[in-house]
Amino acid sequence: MSILVVGSVAFDSVKTPFGEREHILGGAAMYFSVAASFFSDVRLVGVVGDDFGPEHEAVFRERKIDISDLERIKGQRSFHWKGEYGFDLNIARTLDTQLNVFADFRPKLSDAARAADYVFLANIQPQLQREVRQQVKPRIVAADTMNYWIENNRDDLLETLKGVDLLIINEAEARELARESNLIRAARRILLMGPARLVVKRGEYGAVMFSENSYFAIPAYPLEDVFDPTGAGDTFAGGLMGYLAASNASDEGTMRRAIIYGSVMASFNVEEFGCDRLRRLTYEEIDQRFKTIKTITQFADSDAPRRSISAGD
Amino acid sequence: MSILVVGSVAFDSVKTPFGEREHILGGAAMYFSVAASFFSDVRLVGVVGDDFGPEHEAVFRERKIDISDLERIKGQRSFHWKGEYGFDLNIARTLDTQLNVFADFRPKLSDAARAADYVFLANIQPQLQREVRQQVKPRIVAADTMNYWIENNRDDLLETLKGVDLLIINEAEARELARESNLIRAARRILLMGPARLVVKRGEYGAVMFSENSYFAIPAYPLEDVFDPTGAGDTFAGGLMGYLAASNASDEGTMRRAIIYGSVMASFNVEEFGCDRLRRLTYEEIDQRFKTIKTITQFADSDAPRRSISAGD
Repeated sequence: MSILVVGSVAFDSVKTPFGEREHILGGAAMYFSVAASFFSDVRLVGVVGDDFGPEHEAVFRERKIDISDLERIKGQRSFHWKGEYGFDLNIARTLDTQLNVFADFRPKLSDAARAADYVFLANIQPQLQREVRQQVKPRIVAADTMNYWIENNRDDLLETLKGVDLLIINEAEARELARESNLIRAARRILLMGPARLVVKRGEYGAVMFSENSYFAIPAYPLEDVFDPTGAGDTFAGGLMGYLAASNASDEGTMRRAIIYGSVMASFNVEEFGCDRLRRLTYEEIDQRFKTIKTITQFADSDAPRRSISAGD
Repeated sequence: MSILVVGSVAFDSVKTPFGEREHILGGAAMYFSVAASFFSDVRLVGVVGDDFGPEHEAVFRERKIDISDLERIKGQRSFHWKGEYGFDLNIARTLDTQLNVFADFRPKLSDAARAADYVFLANIQPQLQREVRQQVKPRIVAADTMNYWIENNRDDLLETLKGVDLLIINEAEARELARESNLIRAARRILLMGPARLVVKRGEYGAVMFSENSYFAIPAYPLEDVFDPTGAGDTFAGGLMGYLAASNASDEGTMRRAIIYGSVMASFNVEEFGCDRLRRLTYEEIDQRFKTIKTITQFADSDAPRRSISAGD
């Protein structure tokens, strides 16, 4: 099955406590598609400027990601994000954002894009997500969003969510969207907004998935070295959707394994800058980490040993 | 097998967003022993004042907890803690601490106490924990501590840790003790300090356990209503140690199930003030939540579906 992702292809300048890199390939749609490409065909709709050169095309080409719908704007530059992380790698500090070509981005879908079976609406303006949604008839539409849209385009976002099957957001976004601090209650509210499933990304604490009748929780793969967390959430979504599309199923068991693959892909991504680690990732490595997550979460059934306490003893 | 717990029996005045209670029975050793009593015989060493009356004794008596080593000091009052929680129930704000009889607490162990097979050194001064440790020869010694001792009695604490098999602390304490922000690295350092196993409590994110060759992670039981988190950590330790003592084993599988029981007991405890919920808890309820945690963490084995990408395709 084929996947369509609509979102940003960008250049990032990133500084972490472990090093820095200037103008490396980034963007939600890039991270998503590279991760998903391990499992499924992927087509990307986005926009870049003149600074997107052959060496950047190569990243997509070597992963056989279809970028024929990636729009090129002459005489302009691509979206650029500059940020840094302190020792608490959960918190990114944005130093500069230049939207450039992304400021006027209106996704243009080819016939092939419209025919996709699985669609991921990466974090862009909810109105644009909805425009894409209206042009496709896939089996599953997944979406991401961010605090900015929750705060400033809430009505628009709520309208978009009505057409989303699977919402993949982080914990702070879930609480803010639901206006509820308890995550279990927050999830219940969000499931009333449209999505049949909600996946909440919790960084080093793993991820949880909610549906009306099920709950699933996994820890993160235990990493001693987190180098650059940029793109972890989109890589997670890419692994998840890639596995779903490859399985072409959405039962609870498949969804659970999809989350594990998402988590595995994200765990690799944060080990190096940009998509460097994913570019040389092997299936053997993916299988190894899947097995490890299984191993670190298993335990045998048990009934509590009864201690007899009777009155008057 | 019998358990000895040494620590505080106290009175707490607690305010949460959901209500408040004055002078209710609390203290680490109380929460621990009530939880552990579901699985094993428990003997408590601690100290209280005149304000510890028959109604408080009844809590221990109905759970068949042996308090014959609970010292009573005439003319003085018991340890009293006053605190409140905001909507972020992870953070307790201490409004008042009156050590009272606890200021001069020197644990006095009877012969029966010295003969215990499992010992839990609740959070008290590391020097006192060590004095207790030197008087017992149990199969397993577990201990808790807190930021105050890590910051102010570090050398003392490190000396105590040499005689501890199982350290049960929260995440911030683990990072501070190890002086390392990455938890996986922090755990590795702590395991070099003495304990063969480290259990890290993460509140709503569950718990993780480390040994030299193993790692285990579980999510918390999903709760929509957390009413009063006071004593959750000690209840967790009580369920854990209670199950270990009942099983009289410490292999990886037993340890994993012990953590689940700890987590289950803590999940009940936070549903009401003080130990109210535990006092009317049934084994059927415990078994139910154990099964639920199993259900929400299970997923099938899988190998990544391979997508063929060959050069030049």
